[in-house]
Amino acid sequence: MDVESYLKDKSEKVTKCIDGYFSRPDAHVPEILREAMKYSLLAGGKRLRPTLCIAAHVACGGIEDDIMLCASALEVIHTYSLIHDDLPAMDNDDLRRGIPTNHKVYGEAVAILAGDGLLSEAFLMMLETPGNIPVKNILAALKDVARAAGPAGMVGGQVQDILSEDKEPDRETLKYIHRHKTGALLASSVRIGGILAGADDKTLAALTSYGDGLGLAFQIVDDILDVRGDEQLLGKPVGSDQEKHKMTYPALYGLDASMRKAEDLMADSLKALAPMEQAGLDTSVLKGIAEYILRRTH
Amino acid sequence: MDVESYLKDKSEKVTKCIDGYFSRPDAHVPEILREAMKYSLLAGGKRLRPTLCIAAHVACGGIEDDIMLCASALEVIHTYSLIHDDLPAMDNDDLRRGIPTNHKVYGEAVAILAGDGLLSEAFLMMLETPGNIPVKNILAALKDVARAAGPAGMVGGQVQDILSEDKEPDRETLKYIHRHKTGALLASSVRIGGILAGADDKTLAALTSYGDGLGLAFQIVDDILDVRGDEQLLGKPVGSDQEKHKMTYPALYGLDASMRKAEDLMADSLKALAPMEQAGLDTSVLKGIAEYILRRTH
Repeated sequence: MDVESYLKDKSEKVTKCIDGYFSRPDAHVPEILREAMKYSLLAGGKRLRPTLCIAAHVACGGIEDDIMLCASALEVIHTYSLIHDDLPAMDNDDLRRGIPTNHKVYGEAVAILAGDGLLSEAFLMMLETPGNIPVKNILAALKDVARAAGPAGMVGGQVQDILSEDKEPDRETLKYIHRHKTGALLASSVRIGGILAGADDKTLAALTSYGDGLGLAFQIVDDILDVRGDEQLLGKPVGSDQEKHKMTYPALYGLDASMRKAEDLMADSLKALAPMEQAGLDTSVLKGIAEYILRRTH
Repeated sequence: MDVESYLKDKSEKVTKCIDGYFSRPDAHVPEILREAMKYSLLAGGKRLRPTLCIAAHVACGGIEDDIMLCASALEVIHTYSLIHDDLPAMDNDDLRRGIPTNHKVYGEAVAILAGDGLLSEAFLMMLETPGNIPVKNILAALKDVARAAGPAGMVGGQVQDILSEDKEPDRETLKYIHRHKTGALLASSVRIGGILAGADDKTLAALTSYGDGLGLAFQIVDDILDVRGDEQLLGKPVGSDQEKHKMTYPALYGLDASMRKAEDLMADSLKALAPMEQAGLDTSVLKGIAEYILRRTH
């Protein structure tokens, strides 16, 4: 399969879905808030979470259009987390995806509120999932995402990340941060694709293992790119993790051992898909995305 | 009815429910985050939103215990909004409910994340509504709350509030702020009590009118108390709205005219309940709470 064009196609569809959703006229939404939310939502990005969700859904026999809003909501949650991560009280970043961060353009207050608004709106988008998806599946997917985004997932990881700056790195803490800050929502994106398709427990277990490994591998590659990536391609300065004394895999294990870890994790992820293949499901897209994540340059 | 003891009883039950929920062991939640969330959740407060939800639910023939988690989740959303409102980039308040604000104790980064975590967790709590409430009612209630909390509701109101500081007050903007910043979630609290009880459209329309009027009246009384309230009872300095050049009812209309406005709104709220009474539903608790809100001293 041609994973690059698959990713490009899904990314465009997701962007169109998000743009359409957030352009709906609504006299109750202050114009500056709408603008601030759209600024970060439409600033680019690979739309990896929605794409993983769609790929898992279709692999389980689901129809892409049914879950487009739900999948796009994952990008909305991701975007809220980036806006808050970039705040002066957090990572204090001026640049994201090659353009000024939200608070640099709209000020801190509006940036905080744009993030807050996006999280509520993401749940609202998921609740608009059309009627051909059984209501109990929507409920289960919502639970999965809310947990992955909350204190036991992404928010917990971010707290630990902030607390660990300038601390002596240790393996357990580092693993906790990466598994929660980035891994939890990525894994949930894969899993809810299956949940919304009504996948059986065996398939959901396979998707969970695949998503867990892929999520951690993704963040390790992110750490590596922060050391030796191309600033132009990344849209942000390299070396910022080191400058902020962040706990990263390269800092703890070195670049080569980190890359080997990512490769091992991804190999396990691919192996985890075996039960789906035995059940006759096509996992080629999921495999292609995993390969892409490992080899990506930005 | 004795509204004071009703409010005290519900407030205690809600506090117990929240305390229990946030004390559940979960190795994925960093201890400091749990502590920061509980600090603000258990700092007191009248638990007005959950109490309104319970009162509406029971008035519509529902059972209190069925929706205890869902009702409590409204207080969790309210608490997240207070933590973020108090941040230096927003209202920059040092004191809330008589104790230091969240960021004063835990720092800005953890306070932002504690707020973020509470919002996700609130949705998770609502999703734990037990099985005797039909799933479609849970989804409808979630939609209502997500909209009331988001860009078209509370977050929109807060954005407009921040933008209007130091501006010449005007009636339309002031009404927008109050209806959205405070009114939307209060009205939703009432309405979802009915939605979760499977109330018919006539009853939901009555609850909506009651909640809308009550929500706006609540905020006008809040403005008035900020001018002439008792610092000890309020747990925060009086006069802070004026100091921050906030757009308020007393600033625009004066104290007496503001109080008359609140009284008129509340009278309309009570009248709106007539169709429920004609249908044989007991609205005495809802009326008692409205009276209390108008006469409260803190």
